Amino acid sequence: MKFVTYQKDNVESIGIVYESRMISLKSLEKIYAKEGFYPSELIAMITSFDYFRPFLERHLHQVKADRKEEEVTLSREEVRVLAPIPTPRKNIMCVGKNYRDHAIEMGSAADIPADLIVFTKSPSSVVGHLHPVNSHSTITSQLDYEGELAVIIGRKGSNISHNQALDYVFGYTIMNDITARDLQKKHKQFFIGKSLDTFCPMGPVVVTKDEMNHPEELFIKTEVNGHLRQLSNTKHLIFPIQEIISTLSQGMTLEPGDIIATGTPAGVGKGMNPPSYLKNGDKVTVTIEGIGELTNIIE
Amino acid sequence: MKFVTYQKDNVESIGIVYESRMISLKSLEKIYAKEGFYPSELIAMITSFDYFRPFLERHLHQVKADRKEEEVTLSREEVRVLAPIPTPRKNIMCVGKNYRDHAIEMGSAADIPADLIVFTKSPSSVVGHLHPVNSHSTITSQLDYEGELAVIIGRKGSNISHNQALDYVFGYTIMNDITARDLQKKHKQFFIGKSLDTFCPMGPVVVTKDEMNHPEELFIKTEVNGHLRQLSNTKHLIFPIQEIISTLSQGMTLEPGDIIATGTPAGVGKGMNPPSYLKNGDKVTVTIEGIGELTNIIE
Repeated sequence: MKFVTYQKDNVESIGIVYESRMISLKSLEKIYAKEGFYPSELIAMITSFDYFRPFLERHLHQVKADRKEEEVTLSREEVRVLAPIPTPRKNIMCVGKNYRDHAIEMGSAADIPADLIVFTKSPSSVVGHLHPVNSHSTITSQLDYEGELAVIIGRKGSNISHNQALDYVFGYTIMNDITARDLQKKHKQFFIGKSLDTFCPMGPVVVTKDEMNHPEELFIKTEVNGHLRQLSNTKHLIFPIQEIISTLSQGMTLEPGDIIATGTPAGVGKGMNPPSYLKNGDKVTVTIEGIGELTNIIE
Repeated sequence: MKFVTYQKDNVESIGIVYESRMISLKSLEKIYAKEGFYPSELIAMITSFDYFRPFLERHLHQVKADRKEEEVTLSREEVRVLAPIPTPRKNIMCVGKNYRDHAIEMGSAADIPADLIVFTKSPSSVVGHLHPVNSHSTITSQLDYEGELAVIIGRKGSNISHNQALDYVFGYTIMNDITARDLQKKHKQFFIGKSLDTFCPMGPVVVTKDEMNHPEELFIKTEVNGHLRQLSNTKHLIFPIQEIISTLSQGMTLEPGDIIATGTPAGVGKGMNPPSYLKNGDKVTVTIEGIGELTNIIE
């Protein structure tokens, strides 16, 4: 399934993208269950997905059989898409320098890490698909993009083995790890340069893991104003998803709704010669095979 | 006021330490307001403190005048003290190397930072006063303490000036920034080595800012098994509280309940010659003038 979180008449709800329609769970429950049956926040859905999943499958099947699809379909015009988890319950955990060619463009081959590097982004930086990204031009002149595959954790666990790691995944989404390079460098630890308001576009959907047959081999690309900047494949991750989850969970409990960004490939603005940073009006689109496109404009 | 969060009969509530009694807000509201009048979580109290404060002052005064103090007093035996905010809504923001002598003991004078260094700890690492700290002996052999003054934000804001910074503070508490030095070094960015479960003891109380006349000059000390290890004063902070808040808030919105740890003075285990790390059974107590003592035992 592909979950989306949206706002309509100032109310936040979740829906499902199904055969290119956006289905309202509120409308679905009105016909086949009762008001309030489905959670209105994705974190609650994730936490109880084993319970809700058979109902969702049955209701989606039924609505088609009953030819009531129009009744439960949201028009794209009436909703504003939010980040799938608009207010994460902890910082987004981000893997640094996890593609060899990106580690090299940020410095040299000496920057290819031997061990996982993890920093975090503040939940207050999260925005959705098509939400403007603030250029923060008074405090940074080196605004950069980083297209990344993000993993959403579905089950609580710690000391997870490589083999079991994917059992703890709920699904996958796209993240643009917007970064102020000058602040990242100035403050040494990455948190500040990564956490300004609007610096964490995510979405537009979370694809549940059963629909992602091979997360370890997905094309990923980033375009700025239509020009290709990053093009790679998650098969080039130095630390693959299983290893990231396993390493992070050693002694640290992962919880449903936790978000882990897996790192960005080569092609960021800082890596160009000369560097080419984002400016007002730039349109950045990150595309990942099987998930979709995440687009944001710098303002 | 001094707020405490506690668990009694498996229910989480907040109370006030008042003239060496621990007063139950649940009992107070039963007599002078109605059930459910006061929030049961400190974050909710912080968010609406301007509203609740006059009621609290009136009810505390009244309970004394009515000689009903016994009725509203909790015995220390019947409650388990939790961290003041047991589940923070985002990672704890921590300032690194913010005392000159500590920066030097971690390396050399070259480590004294010119700009604020901020890393984060996971909310899943938070525990309360007297809660055991897990030694995680299978994954670290360099367990260390760091006694710190922590600031709790009370008001939402960004781009806050130095002069206004303290207006955004709700209060102060004690934090022990437990660290796995080997993991901190191995993973480069500090998050992993700082975020293992039980690595963030906090409390026992949050003292509201009106009762802390001079947060910029508070004695702070850490003892291990009764032996003095750290002894300093917050007047030695390289980046004082006002500057930390102001810098963090440039482009990043701070929110009620945010926790900022201000850094640790010299005297950590890693800084000793030879280094002396924590082992099972060790008792660590951090004391800060005007707040109290935070004690935890390594298990």
